[in-house]
Amino acid sequence: MLPASVIAEFETIVGTDGLIVERSQLQTYECDGLTAIRTVPSAVVLPRTAGQVQKIVRLCSLHTIPFVARGAGTGLSGGALPAAEGIVISFARMTSILSLDLPNQRITVQPGVINSHVTRHVSPYGYFYAPDPSSQSVCTIGGNVAENSGGAHCLKYGFTTTHVLGLEIVTPTGDLMHIGAPSLDAPGYDLTAVFVGSEGTLGVATAVTLRIVKKPEVVKVLLAAFDSITAAGQTVSDIIAASILPSAMEIMDRLSIVSAEAAVHPNYPQCEALLLVELDGPSIEAELQTQQVHDLCRANGAWEVRLAQSEHERMLIWKGRKAAFAAAGRLAPNYIVQDGVIPRTRLPEVLEEIGRMAQTVDLRVSNVFHAGDGNLHPIVLYDASIPGQEHIAVDLSLRILRLCVDLGGSITGEHGVGKEKQEAMGYMFSEPDLDTMQRVRCAFDPQNIANPDKLFPRPRLCGEKTGPYTPHPLEKAGVAEFF
Amino acid sequence: MLPASVIAEFETIVGTDGLIVERSQLQTYECDGLTAIRTVPSAVVLPRTAGQVQKIVRLCSLHTIPFVARGAGTGLSGGALPAAEGIVISFARMTSILSLDLPNQRITVQPGVINSHVTRHVSPYGYFYAPDPSSQSVCTIGGNVAENSGGAHCLKYGFTTTHVLGLEIVTPTGDLMHIGAPSLDAPGYDLTAVFVGSEGTLGVATAVTLRIVKKPEVVKVLLAAFDSITAAGQTVSDIIAASILPSAMEIMDRLSIVSAEAAVHPNYPQCEALLLVELDGPSIEAELQTQQVHDLCRANGAWEVRLAQSEHERMLIWKGRKAAFAAAGRLAPNYIVQDGVIPRTRLPEVLEEIGRMAQTVDLRVSNVFHAGDGNLHPIVLYDASIPGQEHIAVDLSLRILRLCVDLGGSITGEHGVGKEKQEAMGYMFSEPDLDTMQRVRCAFDPQNIANPDKLFPRPRLCGEKTGPYTPHPLEKAGVAEFF
Repeated sequence: MLPASVIAEFETIVGTDGLIVERSQLQTYECDGLTAIRTVPSAVVLPRTAGQVQKIVRLCSLHTIPFVARGAGTGLSGGALPAAEGIVISFARMTSILSLDLPNQRITVQPGVINSHVTRHVSPYGYFYAPDPSSQSVCTIGGNVAENSGGAHCLKYGFTTTHVLGLEIVTPTGDLMHIGAPSLDAPGYDLTAVFVGSEGTLGVATAVTLRIVKKPEVVKVLLAAFDSITAAGQTVSDIIAASILPSAMEIMDRLSIVSAEAAVHPNYPQCEALLLVELDGPSIEAELQTQQVHDLCRANGAWEVRLAQSEHERMLIWKGRKAAFAAAGRLAPNYIVQDGVIPRTRLPEVLEEIGRMAQTVDLRVSNVFHAGDGNLHPIVLYDASIPGQEHIAVDLSLRILRLCVDLGGSITGEHGVGKEKQEAMGYMFSEPDLDTMQRVRCAFDPQNIANPDKLFPRPRLCGEKTGPYTPHPLEKAGVAEFF
Repeated sequence: MLPASVIAEFETIVGTDGLIVERSQLQTYECDGLTAIRTVPSAVVLPRTAGQVQKIVRLCSLHTIPFVARGAGTGLSGGALPAAEGIVISFARMTSILSLDLPNQRITVQPGVINSHVTRHVSPYGYFYAPDPSSQSVCTIGGNVAENSGGAHCLKYGFTTTHVLGLEIVTPTGDLMHIGAPSLDAPGYDLTAVFVGSEGTLGVATAVTLRIVKKPEVVKVLLAAFDSITAAGQTVSDIIAASILPSAMEIMDRLSIVSAEAAVHPNYPQCEALLLVELDGPSIEAELQTQQVHDLCRANGAWEVRLAQSEHERMLIWKGRKAAFAAAGRLAPNYIVQDGVIPRTRLPEVLEEIGRMAQTVDLRVSNVFHAGDGNLHPIVLYDASIPGQEHIAVDLSLRILRLCVDLGGSITGEHGVGKEKQEAMGYMFSEPDLDTMQRVRCAFDPQNIANPDKLFPRPRLCGEKTGPYTPHPLEKAGVAEFF
């Protein structure tokens, strides 16, 4: 609980209608998309301006109050989970488009703006905003920045970090900073790149300048049905080797095809592996590449290759893919969506191993895969009403992550580390790696109040000595060979 | 001077043939491409392995010896300038290609590998390395990483930072770290992006994993002659608005055309503004876009539009452009190549203002311009034998930089800050901006020994308090409105 005097100061900053302190109302903010962990915050403040955010953060710094920024709360790794003694800074009232600069193809928005609203705003001028997480109709740009969100089209267009040109941020010590620059190669350190994906641990964005992209002349979507994941995976490699860069390449396995079909009836062919390829660009180029992809699918044994004949068919194909997570609910009462990265070429062996691991503990795992960039989403199906099964499912999902790392991949492709994967960071990074990151964190946040106890396996005290190299006793003898 | 015992330890690490301490030999290392400032280092060490680099840096940390890494010494901002009491770590003996991974389109090299050798190595397989600074036949990948080097083709392909997938580095405290990851969105902070372009202030790279790109099917080069810079600039805007992304777009003004012609006879049309557009990609697409660019040039009043008819013609056109700096030597005994960035759309007014400023001090300035990304290279011509003229030229070149910043641009597009533009950083960034960058620096380099006294206007002591927000006395009274 915060002292009444501090609450009163928050109220002075944001007004009575911008402050939530009632327990029943605070419960709305107890978790994000990772519902397994819940903590009710001490207060929620809803600023309207960057100036108010700065005052809020300064007050937090003055009284050492932890804070976490929150957009739509759709994150899947607990990044927006509050601290019990801390506050939530909600961006629900900072939803304005601040400026649009068409000649330079950029737009500046407040962090509470919804992802798909950016595209809606620039669409009349022939532009779109490229990163498209599945939650794009709900999630906010601020949250996308925190998590460096991806989406099916990041294969061609890149993650959020590729599209953030500049940021206005409030640092955890209450400074208002402008990072990024009008030019592509700004002098000094590239702090924009560090801030994007820092999961709220380096401060709070109050304005974001985004790159917008010209809408392609045409968009083509192909579906191909294969008898094996190996054949579908080989086709993906062949497409890339042919210098074709589709805007998206997705693979779904039989279980995810079945559940998508049951949920939204996308009329997918029933097969072992479905490959979905989207191509966009100038008509003349897309037509040619569509034919090439068609031929590569056939050459790898696809027994059906279907080109969407209308916008309706195209949307239906995507609807099935995007429904894959929710549709898992039809296969089992509960499920965990995991998010790992593997080298693209190792997909068949990874899926085989996941199948083996699942069988050993008598669970089922369905798989959807951003095949172009190696981002795998295994969906671990289970029934929480069976005693002990949830624990087994969590354990399996973590072992799948270790498998990804062991094969040269990563513990998260796009969902972030947050609260969920803190411990896994220790498996992926060495001590010096994590230590350097933590020291960067301390450079921004010496008090450890910006979304604390996230991202890293253990908090690091910023006062800890970061002095020069301390030699081993043998070195002190001056024997360089023993270094 | 370093104590004999320390010199002996360096010798133990790199061997007699890997150590330079003779004054006459050390003079080779007294400056890089910025020849105006010279300092002879105390020693030069030439390691062969990452392990040796680590031992060298640990020794430096132990004795608080400043160090700077050096590739080919072609940098233009004094980034490789040594400290008198410090050492140079030369990468002249770390020039190996470590591994090539074609399916994943990546290559890992030692930092001493020359830029163009990367392309030479992967060319037989149909790939190339995209960043192409003018010095690419000499400069090294390590230097490119330090400066985030660009080149004419960065408009389409991006700067060095876009192409560095991972790094092995030795931190200034002597830790060997691996940053970057196999996936595009690695968890944790994006330290790769911070390291690239950090100009040697965060440590030394010992291995670099680069992205390689498939060679385009065809490359087309168009030359267009205009009667005004405004018309050429408008054409550039029109090309981009038409969703065409050329691999390069360059503008040269009359003075630079004249000097290039005199130097290498590229047979340029004599005009006020020459626009050079290179298009690459699949044949079918490049043909179409070449026609579109041709039409846009004509629509903006180009009185000659010439398409290179052979590889020879294409190389000749580029030879003229790439010779622009050296050719300035034909116009005046001395010259300063400046490097600023402006919003693309403001080119005509900037060039007009530069002309006015030059006239006022009775000097001439020729201009070449990476027009697509707004990177301007004014070449200030002068005669150092005329008393006072060098000073006037330097002053003019700095005032041009201020002009770039005032118009919303930047103090450097691709040459870096180094020693040359330390003071200009204070004009471009606010105190909190610089302070945050310096704290990031301290996170890596608490002793301030990694290329010290570069990049920032004044060194910051890493021990300086970086505590929480300290309120103004009025705030202490709890009056939030006075924040």
